[in-house]
Amino acid sequence: MGGDYAPHYVVEGTVQAVRESQERFAVVLVGQKQRIERELGKFPASKQISIAHASEVIDMLDAPNAALKTKRDSSITVGVTMHRDGKGDAFVSAGNTGAVLSASTLILGRIKGVSRPTIGALIPTESGRCFLVDAGANVDCRPRHLFEFGVMGSIYVGAMVGKENPSVGLLSIGEEDIKGNESSLEALTMFRASDMNFFGNVEGRDILQGKVDVVVCDGFVGNVLLKFGESVPSFFKAKFKNFAAKSIVNKLTALVARSGLRTVMKELDYQEHGGVPLLGVNGVSIIGHGGSTPKAIKNMIFRAEEFVRRGVNTKIEEAMKRVNG
Amino acid sequence: MGGDYAPHYVVEGTVQAVRESQERFAVVLVGQKQRIERELGKFPASKQISIAHASEVIDMLDAPNAALKTKRDSSITVGVTMHRDGKGDAFVSAGNTGAVLSASTLILGRIKGVSRPTIGALIPTESGRCFLVDAGANVDCRPRHLFEFGVMGSIYVGAMVGKENPSVGLLSIGEEDIKGNESSLEALTMFRASDMNFFGNVEGRDILQGKVDVVVCDGFVGNVLLKFGESVPSFFKAKFKNFAAKSIVNKLTALVARSGLRTVMKELDYQEHGGVPLLGVNGVSIIGHGGSTPKAIKNMIFRAEEFVRRGVNTKIEEAMKRVNG
Repeated sequence: MGGDYAPHYVVEGTVQAVRESQERFAVVLVGQKQRIERELGKFPASKQISIAHASEVIDMLDAPNAALKTKRDSSITVGVTMHRDGKGDAFVSAGNTGAVLSASTLILGRIKGVSRPTIGALIPTESGRCFLVDAGANVDCRPRHLFEFGVMGSIYVGAMVGKENPSVGLLSIGEEDIKGNESSLEALTMFRASDMNFFGNVEGRDILQGKVDVVVCDGFVGNVLLKFGESVPSFFKAKFKNFAAKSIVNKLTALVARSGLRTVMKELDYQEHGGVPLLGVNGVSIIGHGGSTPKAIKNMIFRAEEFVRRGVNTKIEEAMKRVNG
Repeated sequence: MGGDYAPHYVVEGTVQAVRESQERFAVVLVGQKQRIERELGKFPASKQISIAHASEVIDMLDAPNAALKTKRDSSITVGVTMHRDGKGDAFVSAGNTGAVLSASTLILGRIKGVSRPTIGALIPTESGRCFLVDAGANVDCRPRHLFEFGVMGSIYVGAMVGKENPSVGLLSIGEEDIKGNESSLEALTMFRASDMNFFGNVEGRDILQGKVDVVVCDGFVGNVLLKFGESVPSFFKAKFKNFAAKSIVNKLTALVARSGLRTVMKELDYQEHGGVPLLGVNGVSIIGHGGSTPKAIKNMIFRAEEFVRRGVNTKIEEAMKRVNG
């Protein structure tokens, strides 16, 4: 029931995922049964899709923690609880991010050694992709939290992107070890003392350049950066419109350029690649954008399956044991 | 002597500024006399340009505070001191940012009521420009500091951009008043209690959209955002190159698009507009990028002159008195 276009986009994306699944997995749609059945009826029946009823819906504007208390039969709570109870290997949602975060952390619990579960986002760079962690789950971070984000991010990229021993950078205001804020400076010494493939401080300009595979920052900075990045295409569109309005030649240039621009801009839309993973909980929870398209839903389901298959959580647990001595 | 291309770019920019000045101002070039004279000799003599000798140079890699102590006859220290002593109405430098910041704050002192001087940057938006403050001077900020940045930013935009009662937004991770980190949440209540034209929280995506005239954040976030923004053109260039390599049609598209792209990208280069002002000190100190071109130097000088002419500091002092009751 989650997201701006629920349940129809969620159902459509699920149907697509199952169709392309080669029977590797089945999907349980959690939510208001009648509404889901109506949507599902538009597609050929599949044995890989079933429904679990949940009467309530936490909507995008609900205050997460309050909603979790008052709406105990929400699709989010029911779905995460099913996952905890082994009635599913992973949970996927395009619903209220705060509610999915809280429900997953509370119901699934944390992996041993993890102080704060985190979400990270794979964003495009000039040469490939980079995992920005934390992407908005934890706004006030102690140095220890930043360090753990780096550990978990490194494991995630190693397992999911297939990059061995990925490089980790700590986002700061200068390359030198003396640059940073209180929290980042202390985290830097933790990274330096660890056996990770730690690059050192990276700056804002190094992210899109792809200088490192994992960029660590607190969730305030991560959230602001991701949203800023999302707004760049619209900015360019507006500026290109001004440019086109200045002369006939410009107008023709802009017309020709449009297809190229569109292709390039699309790469910035990291949401399309399938939601962001919550790392550090005893389970698999993939969180999608409220505006997730059917394609994004499909990709989220694939990502969840891959997360399970690659044993990311076992690897995180081992890594936490290692860094905690 | 400041910047990557000193003294020749600084001298060239000064000559251009004076040429276009209509004799509104004169410029004293502070630094190693012989080297400056050599550069100055390449241009027709002007009565509006003189030289003040300073034997030492703080370079871009020097640790600011250490350098200020050991190099007491640096062009930065000599120049700021001359300004304090009334031998100049403003100070402009493309040198070591930290050193200019420290020297200006220590030698000029703070305006009454200001706890922390700040630097802000005018950045382009879809509809005009927006003043991002703090742009990197203060990385760990108490709520009071953020509030003061908003007050000073509002005065600066009002006086320099000519926008009456500019709107001020507080950068956060959501629009609602409950969203933020510890520091921003407490600052929010201060803004709400003030008589400013306060918009409320703004998000990363609202900056380039031009939702407000002044965006307030701590210097860590500001620095990261500005540098991220600076790297966007290079990212697009790389992606467009990939796009062009895919087919002949794409290649032709990219060729045609190039001029448009270049024009649009140029707007992102906020450095060209003339450095960033240090706000809150008892004087005028304009800080330029190390890579400042002659044009940027020229614009910095014009900005300094305008800062003086519009009485920005008197207005900041009045505003601080007002908000402090």
